[in-house]
Amino acid sequence: MPASAPATDAVRLARAYLSRVAEPYPAALAALVAEVGPVEAADRVRAGEISPSVASQTAARRAEERAHADLVAIAKAGGRLVIPEDEEWPRWPLLALENAGGRRCGGEPLALWVRGPHFLADAVDKAVAVVGSRASSGYGEQVAGEFAYGLALAGMTVVSGAAYGIDGAAHRGAFGAGGLTIAVLACGADVAYPAGHQGLLAKVAREGLIVSEYPPGVMPARHRFLTRNRLIAALGGGTVVVEAGRRSGAKNTAAITLALGRPLMVVPGPVTSASSVGCHELLRDGRAVSVSSVAEIVESVGRFGDDLATEPAEKESDLGAPHGEAMRVYEALGKRNGVSDEVVSVESGVPLERVRALLPELELAGLALQLDGGWQKLEMR
Amino acid sequence: MPASAPATDAVRLARAYLSRVAEPYPAALAALVAEVGPVEAADRVRAGEISPSVASQTAARRAEERAHADLVAIAKAGGRLVIPEDEEWPRWPLLALENAGGRRCGGEPLALWVRGPHFLADAVDKAVAVVGSRASSGYGEQVAGEFAYGLALAGMTVVSGAAYGIDGAAHRGAFGAGGLTIAVLACGADVAYPAGHQGLLAKVAREGLIVSEYPPGVMPARHRFLTRNRLIAALGGGTVVVEAGRRSGAKNTAAITLALGRPLMVVPGPVTSASSVGCHELLRDGRAVSVSSVAEIVESVGRFGDDLATEPAEKESDLGAPHGEAMRVYEALGKRNGVSDEVVSVESGVPLERVRALLPELELAGLALQLDGGWQKLEMR
Repeated sequence: MPASAPATDAVRLARAYLSRVAEPYPAALAALVAEVGPVEAADRVRAGEISPSVASQTAARRAEERAHADLVAIAKAGGRLVIPEDEEWPRWPLLALENAGGRRCGGEPLALWVRGPHFLADAVDKAVAVVGSRASSGYGEQVAGEFAYGLALAGMTVVSGAAYGIDGAAHRGAFGAGGLTIAVLACGADVAYPAGHQGLLAKVAREGLIVSEYPPGVMPARHRFLTRNRLIAALGGGTVVVEAGRRSGAKNTAAITLALGRPLMVVPGPVTSASSVGCHELLRDGRAVSVSSVAEIVESVGRFGDDLATEPAEKESDLGAPHGEAMRVYEALGKRNGVSDEVVSVESGVPLERVRALLPELELAGLALQLDGGWQKLEMR
Repeated sequence: MPASAPATDAVRLARAYLSRVAEPYPAALAALVAEVGPVEAADRVRAGEISPSVASQTAARRAEERAHADLVAIAKAGGRLVIPEDEEWPRWPLLALENAGGRRCGGEPLALWVRGPHFLADAVDKAVAVVGSRASSGYGEQVAGEFAYGLALAGMTVVSGAAYGIDGAAHRGAFGAGGLTIAVLACGADVAYPAGHQGLLAKVAREGLIVSEYPPGVMPARHRFLTRNRLIAALGGGTVVVEAGRRSGAKNTAAITLALGRPLMVVPGPVTSASSVGCHELLRDGRAVSVSSVAEIVESVGRFGDDLATEPAEKESDLGAPHGEAMRVYEALGKRNGVSDEVVSVESGVPLERVRALLPELELAGLALQLDGGWQKLEMR
């Protein structure tokens, strides 16, 4: 690190170092950074002048002085390190992580490694996470693709995890509409994982955004997927779970979405399909809202914050008017021949005077026809 | 009517007359019956000594003196008139109609025309309504049949409307398990409607129960289906909507179920299927619970009355322990070869002392194996 580097470079290098030195999410280290700033925090970690809890999070890797090399590596991959000090930092979306309490799902990342030609903060301004099983069905992939396509058309960014199955279909659907999509990875932003999505990831890096909390070259691991899921939930304004089996990782993203106070949307599927079991569990749980169309997703994300519990009771008015006299008179009319108003009265149970008053009304409404033999029914459209 | 008839016969004849004389649900007439009893009410209606509102409900048919003939007709069809004065009357299930306010969906019927070899009050003691579209899909019919089968095995009575599609599949499914099923009709209990279900209805009359608010011979009419739906909702302890299109009558039964304060259960389906659109609307509405299995239906009907809103927050504990050191150490172990504890420490970001403490624990748990070259990972079951 040259001594003449501007302060911002020192900050960037410090955050690059910290990003490598501790496995996300390191709550104690983050607290130290918040207290003394990234440069001082990095110096203290290097020197070992830290509390036992920070030491525990950094002891194993504190000698890993790869900040410069990592910044070169991400640049070679066409990327950059985005840090909270940058305008590009998605401050508001990530704030939910802090508010939800770092202990449960981890707080705001120390830095994000990003590839792609978009300004991250703008890209997540109107975003929805679309996630689901790797073990997806044709139905699930179709729905994920169509929903992502429609969301992209509606101007929303589709956030997902680049996994096989639903994630891949979501990214592709967004691309199909010429939209913006973000892949949040559980490995370095330069690592092509899963291998079969090498081409898709290259396209995302070229036309969308790849985002990762992990420095270049870091390989995926089980716990990193869980840590990564919180970023997906935070960067999407809400999460749509398209398909999830009983043990799908998408259920973890769903739980974090709820913990963050974001709307959780679930796509129903056949109850005979194992790929939808997790979705139906989430629906049954009562904290997810069912979505069947792009319009419903947009509505659900849009009305986030409103009091969903105060739906108007008037909805029940579609009970119709089962005892309406006009309906009863209408039903009593002859289908093929005319019937007299007396017969209509007996058949409908409506008094004769009322029948005589209602028949002309039905005629005006195009529902009855007066013939020589009486009144005949005209079918409703 | 012989002068020597016992009082109960007079009551039955009076209710048979009233059942014919007014189109259900006649709120004013029902209030009169509640006030002066059925025999006196019948006499007053015949004599025209009634309020204008009762007159309006009875004027068209008050000369229809067919009580005796109707009782003979239902007896010929192997049935009977069940009245509130009978032990067989399903008092508790029908009470919900009174409590919900007769104006909205009609109160307790004046009488029920019943066919079949079961005691009605007992038959509805543990009952679930299973309803849905006539325009059903193969998926919907399969699910309706399987759920009805399972409910019957679980000792529950399956209540439905004998319509084509979901209703028919539900009745058949219950029969398949040797269970009890009730068909509630929008026409006389002796009328084979729909015509294609003549055989099914005969079987229900022989082995289950047919129930109708309409006297023998009355033909179905649109408003009668709406009136009938409230009986389905009342006689089932809850309602399962298997499939419903956007304008399905099952949505009416669903709305009444909610008005009665009974649990409304909805079976999700593919969002690409028009037959499930109504179901998903009901789910999205937030007042229906999603059910994917017989066990969930039994649970939903059983927990009716509990406070569903107070689900334990601990559910989120399936977030797992994404930052657990043990998991990180486990993930850092060699897949094919052993790795040293120093390498595990750097890879996992967990301090060496902790790694050395955790490895034996993982070994005890059957997750790690100590080799000459270090530690190897054992796959989780």
